[in-house]
Amino acid sequence: MKVLVLNCGSSSVKFQLVETDEALAAAGKDHALAKGLVENIGGAAMLRYEAEGKRPVRETEEILEHKIAVERALGLLTRGDVGVLRDRGEIEAVGHRVVHGGERFKTSVRIDDEVLDGIEDCFELAPLHNPPNVKGYRAARDLLGAAPHVAVFDTSFHQTMPPEAFLYGLPYVLYQRHGIRRYGFHGTSHRFVSQRLAHLLGRTPDDPGLRLVTCHLGNGCSVAAIRGGRSQDTSMGFTPLEGLVMGTRSGDLDPAIVLHVMGKEELGVGEANALLNKHSGLLGLSGVSNDMRTLLAADAEGNERARAAVDVFCYRLRKYLAAYVGVLGGADAVAFAGGIGENAPAVRARSVRGLDAVGIAVDPKRNESARGTEGEISPEGASARVFVVPTNEELLIARDTYRIVAGLPPA
Amino acid sequence: MKVLVLNCGSSSVKFQLVETDEALAAAGKDHALAKGLVENIGGAAMLRYEAEGKRPVRETEEILEHKIAVERALGLLTRGDVGVLRDRGEIEAVGHRVVHGGERFKTSVRIDDEVLDGIEDCFELAPLHNPPNVKGYRAARDLLGAAPHVAVFDTSFHQTMPPEAFLYGLPYVLYQRHGIRRYGFHGTSHRFVSQRLAHLLGRTPDDPGLRLVTCHLGNGCSVAAIRGGRSQDTSMGFTPLEGLVMGTRSGDLDPAIVLHVMGKEELGVGEANALLNKHSGLLGLSGVSNDMRTLLAADAEGNERARAAVDVFCYRLRKYLAAYVGVLGGADAVAFAGGIGENAPAVRARSVRGLDAVGIAVDPKRNESARGTEGEISPEGASARVFVVPTNEELLIARDTYRIVAGLPPA
Repeated sequence: MKVLVLNCGSSSVKFQLVETDEALAAAGKDHALAKGLVENIGGAAMLRYEAEGKRPVRETEEILEHKIAVERALGLLTRGDVGVLRDRGEIEAVGHRVVHGGERFKTSVRIDDEVLDGIEDCFELAPLHNPPNVKGYRAARDLLGAAPHVAVFDTSFHQTMPPEAFLYGLPYVLYQRHGIRRYGFHGTSHRFVSQRLAHLLGRTPDDPGLRLVTCHLGNGCSVAAIRGGRSQDTSMGFTPLEGLVMGTRSGDLDPAIVLHVMGKEELGVGEANALLNKHSGLLGLSGVSNDMRTLLAADAEGNERARAAVDVFCYRLRKYLAAYVGVLGGADAVAFAGGIGENAPAVRARSVRGLDAVGIAVDPKRNESARGTEGEISPEGASARVFVVPTNEELLIARDTYRIVAGLPPA
Repeated sequence: MKVLVLNCGSSSVKFQLVETDEALAAAGKDHALAKGLVENIGGAAMLRYEAEGKRPVRETEEILEHKIAVERALGLLTRGDVGVLRDRGEIEAVGHRVVHGGERFKTSVRIDDEVLDGIEDCFELAPLHNPPNVKGYRAARDLLGAAPHVAVFDTSFHQTMPPEAFLYGLPYVLYQRHGIRRYGFHGTSHRFVSQRLAHLLGRTPDDPGLRLVTCHLGNGCSVAAIRGGRSQDTSMGFTPLEGLVMGTRSGDLDPAIVLHVMGKEELGVGEANALLNKHSGLLGLSGVSNDMRTLLAADAEGNERARAAVDVFCYRLRKYLAAYVGVLGGADAVAFAGGIGENAPAVRARSVRGLDAVGIAVDPKRNESARGTEGEISPEGASARVFVVPTNEELLIARDTYRIVAGLPPA
């Protein structure tokens, strides 16, 4: 089945055309036929597109709304020289990444009017993310006629967390009235990686005894503790701000700091949000960059604040790794995924330093040689096996979409 | 040496007269000759006082300022029927609990004008705590003539934390400009308990290989990771709000929640601070009480929100215990101290559930029988030995005061 996967941000449309079905997925042979990205919607937008065996496309064009961006995506996918489809009617289904499904959506779901209402009910929980997700859906629905649409939520994988993991130490009424609880994000990535990890261990993902810790370390970063294929805890919380230090996000903070800084620097709520989300994290600490590659290079050249930023990043991750081994009562395997997780052996090595005590270690040589490729990096006979697992959220979105459209139970 | 220990809050003066010296401390025979508390200063104050072998005193009197409260304390200590001193001149030194020493005070210190300036410089960091600490000092100085005064800081023990543990993922300028970093609190308790723990293990507290995790679980709660007698990390942060769930404090939160709730409930900075510090934690979650004894009883009777509150409390502690075992690369021993830590076997048992994986477990029978008394509660042959250790911050304040006045190096 040819599935169009859409991931729409406030000013961007990311798209992939994925070929998948049950047999392809089981064999791990399902894959993207073409990928593209439209950025800076609302102004002079940049289109990037690449299809198997075709020359890459880079174009600039004024694009004022998401619907036009999706139209351009469909145009590229069907264009004579670079396309992979004769016409858009070949798209059999559309899978949408939706950031927030609240407590309502515990699995991926086919979109109908009721589901759409449910996604819109979550606007308050994800005011920057869910509205463009819905824009993408409306555009694709208008442009693609009768193709079925499926919503795959960033939050739904974590809906299995028990109350002791998702409740905050706040007045309970804030949970009841405003839904303030831990939701967790990156669920599609943690699910993809944990399924792959189970496969690598020769176990089924829902084996009740299987205990996994998955690290998604990209621009956003999160860790998840997974037992029997069910998320038990994760480091992101009510929003994607909590947990690990990230490119520009603070991660865990004394909540009193928020109020103290607002007073000291005379910031309003919006400015404080911008400070914590856009000017903090690796960028804020280092003053150099939000990009781990740049920071590792600067650290190697003796930049002390770059070193401090990387140290804080790795130290925080180390605490989460150990905490989640504790939560799971031991771990069978740990996975590193995402741009940093897949490509930065130095971060992996520094993050597990001293964790032999909880069964986690990496072999220096194996760790060094795993860059962007799947592979085991723990020493022979380690108590928890450690792997690099390239994540692929779009593939999982396509697989979910296929299964729902085909009437199959969730994988 | 007879040391008066003063712990002054915004409307309270807690005092003890402690007999200590080097030999008594080494033998563990130093102790309080008398203890008292003046509460509700500024109105109809309640005085409570108890001395060895004398009848307890309970009195109510209008007391409008700290100096009068200290005067009343000295009156009780020298009163014919209940006193333990012939006259106040027998007090040889005064030890003051000071909450915040910033980055300046890394050990206890004799108070002179320069030190006083330093403590006042920390008013901004602890606006509710340091000012009454200074009021208590001024009162005692005025009333006790030439006795030397020593400041013992809640923060100083944690000044050994490395940057990766004390830096937040925030713009570095906030650290430079406003001193925003993790300080940690309860340092006197963590130091006392860790020294006692070393003793129980037959090791010296500064043995570089000694790795301890200490839990102070009282009205406020914190955990510390200690290596070779030096604090490596602790759960409280810039303020005592961060970390574990506490009686009325939230502990760890997605920082974005603070801003979200301010918007939703139209709260100002002061109201948000009150919400997080006074109406959250066990009280907010349960809607029943901030007192663990009440919650455990309610849980036993089937109250679901009381159960949830206790579950969240124990679960969060479990994560910190495991994380700190990771930070230390293993732990030789764990201590439970404070009102909850010393008296609630159920909390200890629920907190270590599943932590065998990181070497921590309790023996059910030993755990049940350790209530308010020192004792080992881990099973025979456990990888980390677990103890209940009644804390005694006043005793450590008195010991520090004695050593500084006697010109001895810190213990």
